[in-house]
Amino acid sequence: MKDVKYVIGVDLGGTNTVFGVVDDKGKIYDERKIKTKDYPSFDDFVAAGCGCIKSVSEKVGGIDNICAIGIGAPNGNCYSGCIELAPNLPWKGIVPIADSFNKFLHIPVVLTNDANAAAIGEMMFGVAKGMKNFIEITLGTGVGSGIVINDELVSGHDGFAGELGHVIMVRGDEGRMCGCGRKGCLETYCSASGMVRTAKELLSNSTKDSLLRKKSPDMIESKDIYDAAVQGDELAKQIFEFTGDMLGKACADFAAFSSPEAFVFFGGVTNAGDMIMEPIKQSYEKNVFPVYKNKAKFLVSELNGKNAAVLGAAALGFKLIS
Amino acid sequence: MKDVKYVIGVDLGGTNTVFGVVDDKGKIYDERKIKTKDYPSFDDFVAAGCGCIKSVSEKVGGIDNICAIGIGAPNGNCYSGCIELAPNLPWKGIVPIADSFNKFLHIPVVLTNDANAAAIGEMMFGVAKGMKNFIEITLGTGVGSGIVINDELVSGHDGFAGELGHVIMVRGDEGRMCGCGRKGCLETYCSASGMVRTAKELLSNSTKDSLLRKKSPDMIESKDIYDAAVQGDELAKQIFEFTGDMLGKACADFAAFSSPEAFVFFGGVTNAGDMIMEPIKQSYEKNVFPVYKNKAKFLVSELNGKNAAVLGAAALGFKLIS
Repeated sequence: MKDVKYVIGVDLGGTNTVFGVVDDKGKIYDERKIKTKDYPSFDDFVAAGCGCIKSVSEKVGGIDNICAIGIGAPNGNCYSGCIELAPNLPWKGIVPIADSFNKFLHIPVVLTNDANAAAIGEMMFGVAKGMKNFIEITLGTGVGSGIVINDELVSGHDGFAGELGHVIMVRGDEGRMCGCGRKGCLETYCSASGMVRTAKELLSNSTKDSLLRKKSPDMIESKDIYDAAVQGDELAKQIFEFTGDMLGKACADFAAFSSPEAFVFFGGVTNAGDMIMEPIKQSYEKNVFPVYKNKAKFLVSELNGKNAAVLGAAALGFKLIS
Repeated sequence: MKDVKYVIGVDLGGTNTVFGVVDDKGKIYDERKIKTKDYPSFDDFVAAGCGCIKSVSEKVGGIDNICAIGIGAPNGNCYSGCIELAPNLPWKGIVPIADSFNKFLHIPVVLTNDANAAAIGEMMFGVAKGMKNFIEITLGTGVGSGIVINDELVSGHDGFAGELGHVIMVRGDEGRMCGCGRKGCLETYCSASGMVRTAKELLSNSTKDSLLRKKSPDMIESKDIYDAAVQGDELAKQIFEFTGDMLGKACADFAAFSSPEAFVFFGGVTNAGDMIMEPIKQSYEKNVFPVYKNKAKFLVSELNGKNAAVLGAAALGFKLIS
C-alpha cells in the first residue's frame, strides 16, 4: 500500500515544457524543463520527455511510484488524448501525445488544454477546493476558460468546450477583429493584449493627460497600464474599469448558462486586485438576471504565481486515478 | 420483481396541472387534469393532486406500482424541491411541493422547471436519446432552456441554471425591454411574442406590402406570421430569417460554453420547420468559433404535439430511480 501517491504534471507550452513530480497536497518535489521548439520531431520530444519524467521521479523513489501523468497543452483533447492543430507548437496536424507517453512508460496518461488544467488545479489545490460548480477564467495573452459543472470538467461532445474567450461581446462591424477570424470576441477586450488595445484607443480618442503617453503607443504593455493605475493615472484606471465592466457582462451571461458558485480569475491581470475585481463584480451584479443576484463569488486564483500549470496538469492526473 | 415500472409525470402550469401515469417507453396510461387557479390554498392543491395520482394509478394496478413522481413546474428548484416565487402560480413565496406529495404518498418525488423537464424527456423519449451533451431550447411565450452536460442536467449552484432566454443579444439601450427588467434578452427577439414584436417593428418601419397588414398590429399572433410565410409573404419570411439569425448567433455562443452534440428546438415556433431551422443553422455556421464548425446537429423535438411536459416530468422520475 502506497501512503503518498505521486503524479507527473506536464505543462506543455509553445516555448517550454515543464515536467514536475507532485503529491496530492500539491507539493512539487522536482522539476525538469526542456525547450519545446528544440524538438521539431514529435518522437524526439516524447523520448526527451520520458527521460525528464524518469529523472524527476527519482526524488520520490523512482518511476514505479508514479500513478499517473497529467498533461496540459494548447488544443489538448481529453477524449482523443491528442494535441490537435496547435498553431504554436512545432508538430503539425494531430499528435497522439497521451498514447505515446503511455507506450513508453506504461502509466495512465490524461490530457486536456491549459485552461481546463488550471480549473482542475484550482479545484484540487486552490480557491475552488470543494466546489462542484465554478468557472475559471484565465486572463493572459488570450482569454481562456475551464468550466466545472456537477463536479466534472465540461469538455463537450468534441472535447473542445469551454472557449469563453470567444463569446461575442460586441456584435457587428464595431467589434474588434479577433485572431479567430471573427469580430467582437471577449478576448479582444479583456485579455492582456485586449487591455493594451483599449489603452491605444483611449489614448488616440482623447487628449487626456496620462502616464501612458510617456511611451510610444506600440510599446505599451499591460504591465504599464497597471503601473500607471497604481500611481493614480485616471486613463489607466478607466482601462481597468472598461475591462472589468466587459468581464462582468460576460459573466452575467455565463451565469444564465451554469449559475456557478464562483468565478475564479487567473493570470497576470489579476495582480491588479480590486482594481479589476471590483469593476467585474459591480458590472455583474448590475447586469445579471435577477434570480442570480448576490449569489456568485468572484475570486482570484490561489495558484497565481505558483507553478499553476504543472499543478493543474498533476491534479488532472489525480482525478484520473481517484 | 416488477417488469414494467410506472412513474407519475406532473405538468404544473399557471392554468392547468396534469397528472399522467407513464411507463418507461413513454406510454401514458391515464391522465387527470385540475385547474391550478382553483386552488388558492397550497394544501388543498396537494390534497387534490394526491387524489388525481391515486386515481390515474388505478390503470396500472394502483399506487403501489408507482416508483416515483416527477414534477415540472415554473421556478421549480431541483435541490430544494420547492417552487420559489413563481409569478404565475397562486401560491406566493416558497412552497415545498416535493416534500408535500412525498409526505402523503410515501413515493420519491423530484422537481425541476418545465424546460429542464422537456430536456430530460427528450433524452429519454425524444430525439436526444443516447446523447450526453445537448441543449434543449423551448420557443414559446418565452425562451426557455434545459442543458445536458456529461449526461446530467445542469442545475448550477442554486438550482436555477439554464436560463438561456436571458442572455443578452443586443447590448445597450437599443435592446428590447424584457419582462426580467433588463434589455436585449434573447427571448425578447426569439420567443413567439418576440416574433410578434419583430413583425410590428417591420410593419411600422416599412410600407412593404404584407398579408400581415390585414390585421390590426395589436391583434397579430405568431401563428399569423407562419400562415403568411407559408403563403409566400416576403415580410413574414423576413421575420423567420431575423429570428433564426438571432438564434443561430446565440447558439454559437452556447457552443463556446458546452460544445453540445445537438441543439434541440421545442415549441410551436418549430412547426414552421425549415423556415426557422434553416436560418438558425446558416447563422450558426457563419458565426460559430471555427473549431465547432459543422459539428452540431440542429433538431426539432420529437415530443412536440405529444404531452411533452407530462413525459418530461415522468422522465425525471425515471432518472431519479435509475
